[in-house]
Amino acid sequence: MELLNPLFRPGAGSQAFTPAAAIQAMLDVEAALARAEADVGVIPPAAAEAIAAHCRAALIDPVRLAADAALAGNLAIPLVRQLTALVAADDAGAAGFVHWGATSQDVLDTALVLQLRRALEDVGADLDVLIELCAERCARHRNEIMAGRTWLQQAPPTTLSLKLAGLLDALLRQRERLRQLRPRLLTLQLGGAVGTLAALQPHGLAVAEQMARRLDLAAPDLPWHSQRDRLAELACWCALLCGTLGKLGRDVSLSMQTEIAELCEPEQAGRGSSSSMPHKRNPVASAVMLAAAARAPGLAATLLTAQVQEQERGLGGWHAEWETLPELLCLCAGALRQAVELLRGLEVRPDAMRRNLAASGGLIMAEAVTMALGERLGRARAHQLVAECCQQARLRGEGLADALRGHPELSALLSHDELSTLLEPSQNLGAADAMVARVLRRYRERTDE
Amino acid sequence: MELLNPLFRPGAGSQAFTPAAAIQAMLDVEAALARAEADVGVIPPAAAEAIAAHCRAALIDPVRLAADAALAGNLAIPLVRQLTALVAADDAGAAGFVHWGATSQDVLDTALVLQLRRALEDVGADLDVLIELCAERCARHRNEIMAGRTWLQQAPPTTLSLKLAGLLDALLRQRERLRQLRPRLLTLQLGGAVGTLAALQPHGLAVAEQMARRLDLAAPDLPWHSQRDRLAELACWCALLCGTLGKLGRDVSLSMQTEIAELCEPEQAGRGSSSSMPHKRNPVASAVMLAAAARAPGLAATLLTAQVQEQERGLGGWHAEWETLPELLCLCAGALRQAVELLRGLEVRPDAMRRNLAASGGLIMAEAVTMALGERLGRARAHQLVAECCQQARLRGEGLADALRGHPELSALLSHDELSTLLEPSQNLGAADAMVARVLRRYRERTDE
Amino acid sequence: MELLNPLFRPGAGSQAFTPAAAIQAMLDVEAALARAEADVGVIPPAAAEAIAAHCRAALIDPVRLAADAALAGNLAIPLVRQLTALVAADDAGAAGFVHWGATSQDVLDTALVLQLRRALEDVGADLDVLIELCAERCARHRNEIMAGRTWLQQAPPTTLSLKLAGLLDALLRQRERLRQLRPRLLTLQLGGAVGTLAALQPHGLAVAEQMARRLDLAAPDLPWHSQRDRLAELACWCALLCGTLGKLGRDVSLSMQTEIAELCEPEQAGRGSSSSMPHKRNPVASAVMLAAAARAPGLAATLLTAQVQEQERGLGGWHAEWETLPELLCLCAGALRQAVELLRGLEVRPDAMRRNLAASGGLIMAEAVTMALGERLGRARAHQLVAECCQQARLRGEGLADALRGHPELSALLSHDELSTLLEPSQNLGAADAMVARVLRRYRERTDE
Amino acid sequence: MELLNPLFRPGAGSQAFTPAAAIQAMLDVEAALARAEADVGVIPPAAAEAIAAHCRAALIDPVRLAADAALAGNLAIPLVRQLTALVAADDAGAAGFVHWGATSQDVLDTALVLQLRRALEDVGADLDVLIELCAERCARHRNEIMAGRTWLQQAPPTTLSLKLAGLLDALLRQRERLRQLRPRLLTLQLGGAVGTLAALQPHGLAVAEQMARRLDLAAPDLPWHSQRDRLAELACWCALLCGTLGKLGRDVSLSMQTEIAELCEPEQAGRGSSSSMPHKRNPVASAVMLAAAARAPGLAATLLTAQVQEQERGLGGWHAEWETLPELLCLCAGALRQAVELLRGLEVRPDAMRRNLAASGGLIMAEAVTMALGERLGRARAHQLVAECCQQARLRGEGLADALRGHPELSALLSHDELSTLLEPSQNLGAADAMVARVLRRYRERTDE
Repeated sequence: MELLNPLFRPGAGSQAFTPAAAIQAMLDVEAALARAEADVGVIPPAAAEAIAAHCRAALIDPVRLAADAALAGNLAIPLVRQLTALVAADDAGAAGFVHWGATSQDVLDTALVLQLRRALEDVGADLDVLIELCAERCARHRNEIMAGRTWLQQAPPTTLSLKLAGLLDALLRQRERLRQLRPRLLTLQLGGAVGTLAALQPHGLAVAEQMARRLDLAAPDLPWHSQRDRLAELACWCALLCGTLGKLGRDVSLSMQTEIAELCEPEQAGRGSSSSMPHKRNPVASAVMLAAAARAPGLAATLLTAQVQEQERGLGGWHAEWETLPELLCLCAGALRQAVELLRGLEVRPDAMRRNLAASGGLIMAEAVTMALGERLGRARAHQLVAECCQQARLRGEGLADALRGHPELSALLSHDELSTLLEPSQNLGAADAMVARVLRRYRERTDE
Repeated sequence: MELLNPLFRPGAGSQAFTPAAAIQAMLDVEAALARAEADVGVIPPAAAEAIAAHCRAALIDPVRLAADAALAGNLAIPLVRQLTALVAADDAGAAGFVHWGATSQDVLDTALVLQLRRALEDVGADLDVLIELCAERCARHRNEIMAGRTWLQQAPPTTLSLKLAGLLDALLRQRERLRQLRPRLLTLQLGGAVGTLAALQPHGLAVAEQMARRLDLAAPDLPWHSQRDRLAELACWCALLCGTLGKLGRDVSLSMQTEIAELCEPEQAGRGSSSSMPHKRNPVASAVMLAAAARAPGLAATLLTAQVQEQERGLGGWHAEWETLPELLCLCAGALRQAVELLRGLEVRPDAMRRNLAASGGLIMAEAVTMALGERLGRARAHQLVAECCQQARLRGEGLADALRGHPELSALLSHDELSTLLEPSQNLGAADAMVARVLRRYRERTDE
Repeated sequence: MELLNPLFRPGAGSQAFTPAAAIQAMLDVEAALARAEADVGVIPPAAAEAIAAHCRAALIDPVRLAADAALAGNLAIPLVRQLTALVAADDAGAAGFVHWGATSQDVLDTALVLQLRRALEDVGADLDVLIELCAERCARHRNEIMAGRTWLQQAPPTTLSLKLAGLLDALLRQRERLRQLRPRLLTLQLGGAVGTLAALQPHGLAVAEQMARRLDLAAPDLPWHSQRDRLAELACWCALLCGTLGKLGRDVSLSMQTEIAELCEPEQAGRGSSSSMPHKRNPVASAVMLAAAARAPGLAATLLTAQVQEQERGLGGWHAEWETLPELLCLCAGALRQAVELLRGLEVRPDAMRRNLAASGGLIMAEAVTMALGERLGRARAHQLVAECCQQARLRGEGLADALRGHPELSALLSHDELSTLLEPSQNLGAADAMVARVLRRYRERTDE
Repeated sequence: MELLNPLFRPGAGSQAFTPAAAIQAMLDVEAALARAEADVGVIPPAAAEAIAAHCRAALIDPVRLAADAALAGNLAIPLVRQLTALVAADDAGAAGFVHWGATSQDVLDTALVLQLRRALEDVGADLDVLIELCAERCARHRNEIMAGRTWLQQAPPTTLSLKLAGLLDALLRQRERLRQLRPRLLTLQLGGAVGTLAALQPHGLAVAEQMARRLDLAAPDLPWHSQRDRLAELACWCALLCGTLGKLGRDVSLSMQTEIAELCEPEQAGRGSSSSMPHKRNPVASAVMLAAAARAPGLAATLLTAQVQEQERGLGGWHAEWETLPELLCLCAGALRQAVELLRGLEVRPDAMRRNLAASGGLIMAEAVTMALGERLGRARAHQLVAECCQQARLRGEGLADALRGHPELSALLSHDELSTLLEPSQNLGAADAMVARVLRRYRERTDE
């Protein structure tokens, strides 16, 4: 039990990587191998069934397995040994056909693919939920006008809806990427010692195809023992998604700052409390998403580095993948689950948005004024004159409207009404709503596909 | 000039990222913006043409540009200033419409996309060439039998063709990934200050679409100022490809070891010489590919980390991308070019392959013997007995054949002819050739698409 | 010329890594080698002087050097060739002694160490200045009380001085680390082909010692051609320092947010302007420091990964260092220079600090109230009751004082005066000032050492 | 239970990071806090003893702790809650003083430091053992002459002793670095909510000093809640050491290649077996060390990235450290333990070394011949002529001696005896043995310190 699992890995995704699940995945591979070999006539059907009958994780001693792996160098070798002994106790003849013609890496890689598939089902489902929640929020918050912020400074107004549309747009791309990589990833590994399937000759390819069919995996053109781009690609995808979620966490936590207070993580008793400060309501989901975004790049880099695997089967690079990819996928799944909870209960504070919109005394509308003046003065000169007014407003602590009205040249160019319109956030949202509509349309198209 | 460019970045890809190319790309964006605005009726056509006429890198002072960027915080601000002054000298009215309604990041991001597209054209072309060379080699070396090697130890035999088929298979996936990411990546950036296109209201979306058409980029549903997955995805792709090439470099350099000497990098006067050792012929292409594979993960991790960009436009994360992504793409392009040169002139030494195949005295055929005996003794027992023979052969310095013939139980089970067949590498290549055929078929299908 | 050098690498540190500086450093090594050999009697003194006389970067053709390096695989081989030709034109005999007994890596590694030393002198000087500025600010801002912030939420009060003391404390550790690593790093490389100095036998060690003396480097016990921890350690130090500076950039930019506005980067005409928004004053120094902090970990990871170099001299790992370490050191130097400028002109806004301190209506003093009540109620119960009052204050939009006074149980326990004291930030700064004094004392001790 | 712990984390180091150990470390901190507060008179001594009496991990429900941490955002908050309840069951008054004046991060950081100290004791002890074994091997293998190898090609001869001296030299530096960082790292964290110790005023600093004394940690000048260089420095050290060990693994596994076979990992029944190939003896220790070296840089990069923590206590960055640093330290400890086992039982094959030394037909002595000729012909010309002879020897498949003797110009310059000496590896080891002696001397000095 890891103490931080419920915090960092709340989703179901991590269930695919428990010791028991790992053992069962390897046994599923051994069972499918035996049955595929029986299908093709390489081993007796009865032997295959005898083997498959013992492919249950509960029969394996995990402590001995782990200890023996330290000597053997991987988990498959002692697993095959335990499985062989279990079968032999019932059927000595069948025991002779355990792991027939395969190598350790065939079992470990295919088992990993099975575990990844299981975890990705949960991740995919959570991603669908997050996309749906995001779309729903996008539609709901089209009238929530708030200050845009660039370089951490207030900027012209935008809407909460447009912010969420940016997230939705990114999530749709992430889902598209996942769809594209899945068929590359969910691929059988069966090659024997050096990837030629020599030990199963002349039935190797037929066994591989049958085994892939039984496990519902793609049969590759050839084994990928030391070509690891499939796994590294998944690692990159996880890190890409963690980045998108980390940005969400960063934005939500910035919006929760005491002085800004436009958004708030969902309220729940005890959630985000502090051991010293009774007034606190800390952004826990944001913390988890940001932590995942900070950890994912290093883990993905390990998978990328580990691609350099030697010859037919590599040394060290392969071993570096074993814990790293599951760890990365679990962190990604956990951050995703936190994002779902966050979007489900996100609190929105329109009052604070309005207060902050007004905080700069109209300075954030300076661009709008510039554009209006620019048509008459040219952009550069308008920019310069308005910048002077901004500077003066700041120094005098007055609003931009006053500074503009006090400016001899500019005041003549802008009528009172025109200026009021230019300084009114709701009149200066550009295409924000049209963009939201476009993203929502794309969301519906993509989701109906 | 960087002294190591010709070594590390020999391809044309890096031409897209010279100072002059960067300036021209920004100017191309400004010109397209002005013309798109004229198309839509936002600015006068004559102004657009006046602006576009000055959008030539040769007119810009790069030293002042760089110096001013230190103050402004980015290159677009001083570029707009220089461009405005240039236009103003000819046409004061037109100068007022330079950069109309855009923000710095619109220019910088779109210019980056244009540069990436240009570099990816070269990378894509080199990738096609490498794939073709690899396929040709695959077809050519089907009879080159050599020892397989796992965990850096000799293992049962394989063929050079199958090794190359693994590379070809991976390169085909890399090309598929590139095809899939291109439409996501090659996308216009135009959003104005906070991504609402407020400054161009009500023509913002029309301008964006027209501008995208002029630049032959996709028009996104909304700006992606702070959703950076597109760029991070490209970074991952570069690192994935560098990993594949690094594996090639590792394998070639291992095969060039003095004691193995099965492959050799192309011979060329002065290539891979040593300043101290006249006998040396160092694997230069392998060194470059391995170096790129060592550098790419860290650079990709930076892009992944930098995804966490704040609110409408981020601080620091955006800046971290500017040099890192070009650097990564150039390293990738350079490694790719080295791979092309390597595969074009790779020397193959069948004699050495035969010598090394025989080096273990038949030990590497132990799996084949095991499988043959396994049908009679069961896999586990056969494995154990053959392992004993291997151990004895090692201790006595004799061949595996002798050890097997001297073994009381096993010698009775294997006829002389059977044993000869089992110990003959060319008889134990499994499905190697069929796999090669499958990959070549896939290559032809994919290339004809 | 790199367009972003003045922004990202404003310090003098990067001068050590220009092409001309790199060539001169290699030539300095060749000159020192020749003279050391003459000192020991390995080559004629006149030959050494003839060689040294030609060791001037201006005599080398950098374009040809770069082109030839692409073939040779490194810069030293073509440099030696050019140098030999230069010497031969004057003194054919002396030319025969160029690069006598050395290998390329001896020249490249020692030249790199010389360049690193030069850059570190600037970095060390800037670090001293930053420390001094920080100490001066620490002493100056002891009365600037501001809201502490944890998890991006307001918390009990602290002082600007204490914040800066945390930075000062970290910078003092960074300087200590630099002092400790310098003697490990500034070490000669001279080993010949495989590190045995065989080509200089029996004078190898004497030459090495003499050469180290001439270059003012340490003479190592043995060459470190493939033990690269010295360089990786420096990379880690750079990334550690970038992290410290990135935190400064993060904090300053958070404090510059429009709604907070407690600190501001130095004002300078044109600094941090925006191409679209005339009102903006973007935190440029913070952006550069944050970008360096985002890039440094990936670059340091490359150096760490590259430590795995094969046998006597490695393949690929060594090559991965060449550009990466200089790049990292230059980014670090640039961020440091930006930090110096930032601290030199940092604007402090006590008014905003006071406004923000009051913003929560006393909620941030909840811990103080809890501790006072805890003595009577126990910490847990006090925490719970005060949390209820905080919650009620939030819901009703009232101050914490009102909520506490309205609470039947708590109001009886706290007198009006006591409560006023508990809610007064300046009365609840704990040991802040004493801690500042301790750090300043340590600063003075360390600086006087 | 993690299945791969015995393989990847065989050392005792990882015992410091089990759930029970983590809980106990936090409780040790709470106990020390209470007692320190009693020492100083802040809380009643009886309360402190009542608290300390319940600070036993066995009393804590870890499943509930983990579940509650998901809500609270960290482990300290629910731990304090459970501890308070335990104390309250015995002594309600004492329960009120649990966690008095501290914040969660005080407990978590100090507990982490305690765990790191415990793990570093094991790591330090294993490092001492490894250094001793390495020194012993250095002394033992001074007569084992073998081919040097650069860029993965044979080069002039060296000795196994010199190779090991390079490792020893690096390990001595790693030990020195650990000694230097320990006092920085082993530092108390106690600052309360925002690092001012306000809740303990006016006794804060006295409590901190007393608490540090009780825990045998250094008392820092001020808290380091958001200045994380201490932890990032340790992460870098772990990655530096993993790099040194990864190089050892790379070299040993290269030397174990079937065609080279100069070294072999220790023999042990079942160790490094293969599930498909009975003849295999895979380098398991090397695999583990290489895997650690591949994983460590990414994990260290996470700690470096995570340094950018906001204001008084950060969001996300802090959380990213929690699992990453223990993971990194455990991988480092595991690789170190594997290195100890490797060096303890490393098998050395002088016969193979001799065979390989002869494999190039004298080509690897080309440098020695060049140097001898260089005195007469100049280095460049000698290099060129010898290179021609090497090329000819390769083409004709003859030895270098024959090629030299057949060369009209060179044959006249070298007597038969001289040539024999130049081509004799044992005569061309340069200062190898003297260097070994120097490193061994340094080892003895450093170890006696």
